[in-house]
Amino acid sequence: MLIKRLTVIGVGLIGGSLARALKRAQACAHITGCAPEVKELKRALTLGVIDDFYTDIGVAIKGAEIVVVAVPLGAMAAVFQQLAGHLDEATVVTDVGSVKSRVVEAARRCLGPYLPRFVPGHPLAGTEKSGVEASLVDLFDGHRVILPPTAETDPRALAQITKLWGQAGALVEIMEAARHDEVLAATSHLPHVLAYALVQALAKMEESGTVFRFAAGGFADLTRIASSNPALWHDIVFANREAVLTMIE
Amino acid sequence: MLIKRLTVIGVGLIGGSLARALKRAQACAHITGCAPEVKELKRALTLGVIDDFYTDIGVAIKGAEIVVVAVPLGAMAAVFQQLAGHLDEATVVTDVGSVKSRVVEAARRCLGPYLPRFVPGHPLAGTEKSGVEASLVDLFDGHRVILPPTAETDPRALAQITKLWGQAGALVEIMEAARHDEVLAATSHLPHVLAYALVQALAKMEESGTVFRFAAGGFADLTRIASSNPALWHDIVFANREAVLTMIE
Repeated sequence: MLIKRLTVIGVGLIGGSLARALKRAQACAHITGCAPEVKELKRALTLGVIDDFYTDIGVAIKGAEIVVVAVPLGAMAAVFQQLAGHLDEATVVTDVGSVKSRVVEAARRCLGPYLPRFVPGHPLAGTEKSGVEASLVDLFDGHRVILPPTAETDPRALAQITKLWGQAGALVEIMEAARHDEVLAATSHLPHVLAYALVQALAKMEESGTVFRFAAGGFADLTRIASSNPALWHDIVFANREAVLTMIE
Repeated sequence: MLIKRLTVIGVGLIGGSLARALKRAQACAHITGCAPEVKELKRALTLGVIDDFYTDIGVAIKGAEIVVVAVPLGAMAAVFQQLAGHLDEATVVTDVGSVKSRVVEAARRCLGPYLPRFVPGHPLAGTEKSGVEASLVDLFDGHRVILPPTAETDPRALAQITKLWGQAGALVEIMEAARHDEVLAATSHLPHVLAYALVQALAKMEESGTVFRFAAGGFADLTRIASSNPALWHDIVFANREAVLTMIE
């Protein structure tokens, strides 16, 4: 499959890495970037991650076969709302959000008649870094991507997004959104909550300078995930709070 | 300093790595290994970690300038008791236990008149593996070793053990035993407790096969430390239970 035009909304670690992987596979003739900040987009262009860019969503998605929404969870609904007015009949939309129930709710609320061409997605890959500079061509190689189709999702749209992730090096799995959120609460969200809580507890200790100075190997692994972007993780844990609270319990 | 004869009691990850590092530095003319199992000792000899071995502690420490006790915490007091009857006047004894208050208590109880030549020690280095096959020549390079001398410790003995760890590539820090145990509860023992608890919670979930299959990066870091030897970590957490319970609180 050659995608004539793909638009990535949000060109950070995930959006940037997907664009790099698709370029490596020669899967797209043209990749357009879209984000609110020109500075970010210029960096992505300079790095060769995208071919051109627009800050206006309506312009950026014009003629796109596939639109990938790779913005933080908290910004997802607002982007869907802006998409709704400008989507072509044929355009397939997917996202990369870490909590699927909320994303599906937002899509159902905002995308209306375009819902059959929305394919929710979540790649189980990432690093503690953010931004297009941290994007990696092989970030998804051999990693799983979970696609939890809605009742309305058109099987052809699902097939297109399955192919897209395959070309990016990932292994696609189909799973219900609610089950995805439970599994991720256990394997990803709770570990991050524990890591943040541990580092926070230590930072509050007296003479925390001393404490961190004597941190050994096991602790370094935990501080690594606790150095992830706290705003992103706030959104994730808040969006999946029922499942995360169950796991904490 | 050339040590004419050094005896390592317990030739596992830590004892084996220290022997390797001292050989690299040409700091010892002769390293004797001692352990209850001949099979373990033969492996260490074959790997070139030690020069000879005895299973009998009394024989193994004969003529040793320095004796390093590198056995699990739970076995420390029993080894001290066996040492007491056989120590030469001049022999300096050190250990590598992860909880210093308990080790110092055991030394005070068992070593009697030899207490001034006992230097408690704890290298802040390790991996999730155990055994002499896992030992590494550079395990201590650039890592801290904490030496919490007792009130009775002879400053010359402390100087000898400080030098020993320096030759093994480590950075020596002096700290009180109680403070060491608080700091390690925060930076090492609690992280391990969290990691074990998390992995245990997931293993108990229904369909845990599925759950582990979808574990992403952050989780892998945690499972790594949770794959450490559970018997060793039971001993450590139990020996430092007051400080660990305070941290959990």
